[in-house]
Amino acid sequence: MSSLIALWAAARSAHPGRWAKGFALWTTLTTALATLPVGRNKPSLPQILKRAFFGKPIATKHAHHERLSVFVGLPVFASDALSSVAYASEAILGVLVLGSVALIQGQLWIAGAISLLILIVAFSYKQTIHAYPSGGGSYVVASANLGPRPGLVAGAALMIDYVLTVSVSVAAGVAALVSAAPQLHSFLVPISCGCIAIVAFANLRGVRESGALFAVPTYGFVIGISVMVVVGLIKGLGSAGPVHQTVLADPGTIGKEAMFPLVFLVLRALAAGCTALTGIEAVSNGVPAFKAPEAKNASRTLAIMAALLTVLFLGIGFLSQRLPTISLYSTHNPEYRTVVSQIAGWSFGAGSFGFFFIQAATAAILILAANTAFADFPRLASLLARDGYLPRPLARQGDRLVFQNGIVLLALASILLVYHFHGELDLLLPLYAVGVFLAFTLSQTGMVVHWWRSRETGWQRSILINGIGALATGVVMLIILGTKFLEGAWIVVVLLAVLYTAFRWIKSRYASITSQLATGIRAPARLARHTVLLLVPRLHAGIVKSLDYATSLQGNCRAIHVAISDAGVTQLKKDWADIGGPVPLVILPSPYRSLIDPVLEYVDQIHEEEAEEVVTVIVPEAVATKAAHRFLQENVAAQLKAALGSRHNVVVTNVRYFLE
Amino acid sequence: MSSLIALWAAARSAHPGRWAKGFALWTTLTTALATLPVGRNKPSLPQILKRAFFGKPIATKHAHHERLSVFVGLPVFASDALSSVAYASEAILGVLVLGSVALIQGQLWIAGAISLLILIVAFSYKQTIHAYPSGGGSYVVASANLGPRPGLVAGAALMIDYVLTVSVSVAAGVAALVSAAPQLHSFLVPISCGCIAIVAFANLRGVRESGALFAVPTYGFVIGISVMVVVGLIKGLGSAGPVHQTVLADPGTIGKEAMFPLVFLVLRALAAGCTALTGIEAVSNGVPAFKAPEAKNASRTLAIMAALLTVLFLGIGFLSQRLPTISLYSTHNPEYRTVVSQIAGWSFGAGSFGFFFIQAATAAILILAANTAFADFPRLASLLARDGYLPRPLARQGDRLVFQNGIVLLALASILLVYHFHGELDLLLPLYAVGVFLAFTLSQTGMVVHWWRSRETGWQRSILINGIGALATGVVMLIILGTKFLEGAWIVVVLLAVLYTAFRWIKSRYASITSQLATGIRAPARLARHTVLLLVPRLHAGIVKSLDYATSLQGNCRAIHVAISDAGVTQLKKDWADIGGPVPLVILPSPYRSLIDPVLEYVDQIHEEEAEEVVTVIVPEAVATKAAHRFLQENVAAQLKAALGSRHNVVVTNVRYFLE
Repeated sequence: MSSLIALWAAARSAHPGRWAKGFALWTTLTTALATLPVGRNKPSLPQILKRAFFGKPIATKHAHHERLSVFVGLPVFASDALSSVAYASEAILGVLVLGSVALIQGQLWIAGAISLLILIVAFSYKQTIHAYPSGGGSYVVASANLGPRPGLVAGAALMIDYVLTVSVSVAAGVAALVSAAPQLHSFLVPISCGCIAIVAFANLRGVRESGALFAVPTYGFVIGISVMVVVGLIKGLGSAGPVHQTVLADPGTIGKEAMFPLVFLVLRALAAGCTALTGIEAVSNGVPAFKAPEAKNASRTLAIMAALLTVLFLGIGFLSQRLPTISLYSTHNPEYRTVVSQIAGWSFGAGSFGFFFIQAATAAILILAANTAFADFPRLASLLARDGYLPRPLARQGDRLVFQNGIVLLALASILLVYHFHGELDLLLPLYAVGVFLAFTLSQTGMVVHWWRSRETGWQRSILINGIGALATGVVMLIILGTKFLEGAWIVVVLLAVLYTAFRWIKSRYASITSQLATGIRAPARLARHTVLLLVPRLHAGIVKSLDYATSLQGNCRAIHVAISDAGVTQLKKDWADIGGPVPLVILPSPYRSLIDPVLEYVDQIHEEEAEEVVTVIVPEAVATKAAHRFLQENVAAQLKAALGSRHNVVVTNVRYFLE
Repeated sequence: MSSLIALWAAARSAHPGRWAKGFALWTTLTTALATLPVGRNKPSLPQILKRAFFGKPIATKHAHHERLSVFVGLPVFASDALSSVAYASEAILGVLVLGSVALIQGQLWIAGAISLLILIVAFSYKQTIHAYPSGGGSYVVASANLGPRPGLVAGAALMIDYVLTVSVSVAAGVAALVSAAPQLHSFLVPISCGCIAIVAFANLRGVRESGALFAVPTYGFVIGISVMVVVGLIKGLGSAGPVHQTVLADPGTIGKEAMFPLVFLVLRALAAGCTALTGIEAVSNGVPAFKAPEAKNASRTLAIMAALLTVLFLGIGFLSQRLPTISLYSTHNPEYRTVVSQIAGWSFGAGSFGFFFIQAATAAILILAANTAFADFPRLASLLARDGYLPRPLARQGDRLVFQNGIVLLALASILLVYHFHGELDLLLPLYAVGVFLAFTLSQTGMVVHWWRSRETGWQRSILINGIGALATGVVMLIILGTKFLEGAWIVVVLLAVLYTAFRWIKSRYASITSQLATGIRAPARLARHTVLLLVPRLHAGIVKSLDYATSLQGNCRAIHVAISDAGVTQLKKDWADIGGPVPLVILPSPYRSLIDPVLEYVDQIHEEEAEEVVTVIVPEAVATKAAHRFLQENVAAQLKAALGSRHNVVVTNVRYFLE
């Protein structure tokens, strides 16, 4: 059976084409018949399953990326940013509805302010692209220019926000699905967690950042929303002047002006809308992926992205005011529909092809945005791990050339978040964007310092641009923090502090290890004193091989029998007299029937006499060749190792013998 | 903190008295203050927790039982048998109610037949006591007289029935509780599982079979039920002749005579009532525990037990017919009350002290009956394991002198059963008693063969008694199997077959191991060829110690560096030139970034040249002294060992170095 699976895996990897499954099946069966005998070191079942799930290993030398044109680069880097228009307008409206219906009509002013912010940030990042053509993520820029601590803050902020990108994007994508198929509303959490698991799985296999995968949903979304905006505008042209709009909301929601002062509500709506800016920094992280001239192409991509983002965002904001009826229920309410789905329903007609196309494209680009975080988070974690701020395993690439530990970590964290907030978008959004804007601010401030130090041609102009960027994003970050603090932003602040502390603790721990291991490097010396203890439960063929090994080690060799019961001791003594040769047999009584404790006591006795004596304990271990036989054996070596605790100068050696 | 716990554990074990907790607390705190520095090899936190939970180890030499008089022996061995009167009458009525109300009035005939059966079985076992004064369980008697296979069948049947004893007794005990406190009805499963866990835990600590523990509930139950019967009889004397009884049952239950022929129903009621006989064999298993003359005392205990059992059983049966109203709902129904509780309510008055006393005593003796199975099952499993029919770990006594693996196994199996049947007594009962009567039959048949072979004085009379016993129990077993088969007894048959097959498979496996290890025992020879490979990730102080060790082994020593990335290789080569001495450094490329695979390939290469070359792979391992530091380290040795698979002639050695 297991060899059949192996053959199937082999046949599949030899014929990786999409339509080659049938051929692979044929090959599997024929090869199975042709080559029934299998080699001695055949792969184990877990190995085979791993291969079948994750594909065959990829060699390090095959690590390369296709270079991207602007046309292909746009979907690859812009899906995260563009997808945020799917929820940003809705987030603004969700805050304004707390005020009054009149306040909702003023939303375009806020959308305008955010559009301005988009342009400022895009301009700022254009500078970063030219200054860091090898990729200038916030962690890199902040570390290089502001020092390691601000760099760590930026790193922590980004890690938190990547988790939120996954949770928010998936929740918004599922919201788009639910708006098209309301009967799915009760399955928010399982569908969202399932989506995260699928994206994580695809990334563990190693998704190639291929143009087609990204191009279809991204351009589909851009074109779909554009057409929707145009159709909506034409339809809306009939009614000039402000429309009378019926607003549906959860009972007791509207008219909380008494509770929240107007200024606070406006600022909070602005903060909510700033989720539109998430993902805008992606291009500057990935400059080297573009075709030459890299910086110029990246810069052009960024400009197109910013323009599209502004247009789509303003278009959706404008149309949301033209809807005769707009429902702004909380996600919790089964009547909840996304604002985009309401606009699509109004523009194209409910149940039309256009309506379903918009929902599908929205869900697709949002899942893609989550996928982007699955590429970015593990890469950032690996940078931090390489610098010693996170455990080393996060810096290790698996055999599919992906940072698998980072992928798993991100999937678990975002599933936890989705689960905790019941997959409800309006509970997740308040946590979002704090981290992004903190990273923006640190990155732009870093750029200001960069220009100040470099004094390149035109440094004054560059300082001005990045200075405005830093100031604007900094002020917005404070607004976000201030207005969303009690709603959930405090969680981000706490996590930030925890992560920052963890980074520094791990760094100091690794530094301590390095310094401990740096002293005392010297040429090797032979051991002055060495005792070899061979554990002998009874005399059999497996023991003889171990005894060969024990006597061959340089050292004072003794056989040890732990006498749990008196039965067998006499027989063993007699047997040992025949074949033990020069090795004496020591019987250790075990009043409490433990196999391990008497050995430890004996080792301690030896060390009491001479602490520097190195004691090698040889544990013969039976290895069953069939898995079904394995549970009849015990692993004494592992028990012994665990029980050794902090005893120095004890070496555990495992000599294995084989059972058919 | 952990040292505080250690001190507390030490203080508690130094002052084991019941009232010494306060003194122990005082000692703990004072000693903690007095002796803050702790030794190098202080016990680990898990060890301390283990001690705190399970108590300090008990030495093998303290393994003795107090010898029991008849007065103390009765509760110890009879609780299982006597407790079955709590559900046996109810089981009979539960079947008869399927017929007609008139049929219910005939139950005393069935109770009479069962009482006769009790006397026959008790007489039979009296013979076993005298023939096997060292303890004659069914497994022992059947194996000795009928051969190993019938012995195994008896063993399997008993193991299954011990699991059922726990499940049924606990379910019946909880039913008694629920009859007194109906609001607990929705918590049948958690309460039952909790009871099993508590009993298992007490047995893991090692319950002393102390007289007091058993005497109070058992004598309490016997006296309580006796008083109840007497009070009920007096109350019932007023109304001579048959009483008109109102029978309450689940809708659609009564009057299924059309579906079930009368004879079938009567036989099935008989089968249901045979649960009264469970546990009757306990005395004959434990003869050596009695005071001298052992056989005589045991025999007397058995006689008293049989008499009490008959009287209580008939008394309850009779009174159940005198109740003006009897409810025979299924356990599932929240209106369900045990028959004993209805009798107690009628005799003593609902809510009276007598009523609650009966419920409490019933629950207590039933929990005690479960406890008996926790003593018997692990002992039987250890016998089977000692004979090679079950994995050896089941034969090992833990440091509290209990067969801990058997206890855990029994607890898991019975919890599974209770969980599967929702803790409902009437679903569990049909599975019960098949195994018991199979074991009875095999044991009695074994006794017949025993007498035939021994021809002791009076063997003819003995053969007659055991022959009648074997015949009666055999016929009853067939009746039980036939009438309960579809209701659940088939599960027991399947389990019996599975267990029997497993016993034989394990035996053959151990036999194969023994024969494989018996050949090739010879005097040790020094290894002709030995290569030592030292894994070197980079050069540090921990590696130097390992290098000392590696060079001290007799063999051809090489250092191995797996180059996952090129970084560090140049530095390592330079460092090695300085201190490597005679040991060459081999750089293994790792195109797929695996740490393990290149080592395995290198080992395979060596073996291709010379298969008999013994290769020792030395894995230096960092040991963090603080648990919080541990997650930053990886265990390469375990990974390597797992990956070695069935490669021969490879030894894995773990040299540990320590980090503060």
